[in-house]
Amino acid sequence: MTKPQKQGKLRLARDKGELRPAPSIVLVEPQLGENIGAVARAMLNFGMSDLVIVNPRDGWPNEKAVAMASGASLVLDRARLAPTTAEALGAFHHVLAMTARPRESLLPVLTPREAAEAMKLRTDRGERCAILLGPERTGLANDDVNRASGVISIPVNPAFASLNVAQAAVVIAYEWAIADGAAPAPADLVSAAPATREQFEGFIEHLFGSLADARYFYPEERRPVLERKIKTAFARASLTDGEVRTLRGVIKSLVQGRPED
Amino acid sequence: MTKPQKQGKLRLARDKGELRPAPSIVLVEPQLGENIGAVARAMLNFGMSDLVIVNPRDGWPNEKAVAMASGASLVLDRARLAPTTAEALGAFHHVLAMTARPRESLLPVLTPREAAEAMKLRTDRGERCAILLGPERTGLANDDVNRASGVISIPVNPAFASLNVAQAAVVIAYEWAIADGAAPAPADLVSAAPATREQFEGFIEHLFGSLADARYFYPEERRPVLERKIKTAFARASLTDGEVRTLRGVIKSLVQGRPED
Repeated sequence: MTKPQKQGKLRLARDKGELRPAPSIVLVEPQLGENIGAVARAMLNFGMSDLVIVNPRDGWPNEKAVAMASGASLVLDRARLAPTTAEALGAFHHVLAMTARPRESLLPVLTPREAAEAMKLRTDRGERCAILLGPERTGLANDDVNRASGVISIPVNPAFASLNVAQAAVVIAYEWAIADGAAPAPADLVSAAPATREQFEGFIEHLFGSLADARYFYPEERRPVLERKIKTAFARASLTDGEVRTLRGVIKSLVQGRPED
Repeated sequence: MTKPQKQGKLRLARDKGELRPAPSIVLVEPQLGENIGAVARAMLNFGMSDLVIVNPRDGWPNEKAVAMASGASLVLDRARLAPTTAEALGAFHHVLAMTARPRESLLPVLTPREAAEAMKLRTDRGERCAILLGPERTGLANDDVNRASGVISIPVNPAFASLNVAQAAVVIAYEWAIADGAAPAPADLVSAAPATREQFEGFIEHLFGSLADARYFYPEERRPVLERKIKTAFARASLTDGEVRTLRGVIKSLVQGRPED
């Protein structure tokens, strides 16, 4: 399927600068450079270019990634590194996690097509979207899945559900390209600015801190389960910036209680 | 995205024998064993299992193909070899060629989605369909494209149209799975029971009551706006029964504060 004219056209794309706005891909602890390169290639094939890499096993840059990217070095050259998933996601408004295990989470489960359409609506109104992909062997850890506000599940053959990370990227990038080619979002869907992940995490920390002060997490063994349960419920709401501020006021008020008259 | 239980499930699939009827993939003169393996993997992921290989450069069987297939050896074990494209296609009723150069042909050009839907109709009435994929470097020769009755063109970024043969296979296999309807609807996967309206309103009343006690709604004129804002944020989360109970515990804990030591 390789096209002889790709060099000339790629140069044109560089000269023209940025591609259209599109979701970013965040690769969490990828193991094989070849997979990073194949993801980069799939991204550029379908009009995506912003790649964030969390703590790659074999360091960065990676020669095998470049070899596999096969001309999509544009994506690798611009790729950003992050030490943790939390830092990688800080500036995004909307995060969807790709996982083959939707049953473990209470987050809404979207098909790649539904996810691409939802991200198209959000991207068109200026929100920054990220798709979170996990390490090859283990997939995303539960803690990372729970940083997302939804899960993308690819409808695979249940008898052979092992999907390579680059193949998963092909599917979502392909659906993005189709959704991006569709009509722009109707104006009536425009709503209030969503909270960034950083604002959301700040709210969650505030809540958990107040609950810890109130000895809510007693006995301590219950804490991880309770934290995940509470965070998931709020994540699903896709809170706006203003809602996060209101809810922080709610926590403060409940903690302070009735003022002295 | 790897599943720990795949071995057991794969064995089950073998025991049950054939998968549902699906199109075949015909790889013409593939060069890299890795690509053959990746195509096999993508096929089995999406419920396809019949692979025909025309004159592979490095002979057959190919160890690199097996390594890359990552458990999809079922497909490689059953793969059939053919000396020429003409012989490979002899028994099929309907052949579509994947190419990035639809303009060179007078054949009808289909998107992967249209192609999958067309093949589903034909497969359901007992016709045998094949998807023809060319060698990595050059793509399909014109003579081979013209053995097909239509061309499948993947909507790629025109500035970077170089699509790996295995990535092209992922796209068409994925669309096949959707057209075939084999995958469960993601909505079926959301398992936890949602809260009834009564449970939800009870939670909201509990929260508003506690906030009123804490003089959160002061001055009183702000109350309707604040109530609506808070309720909307929680409504959007579509809380489950269990989450409502957890959040009531959260309110109670914050109101009570740190127990006397």
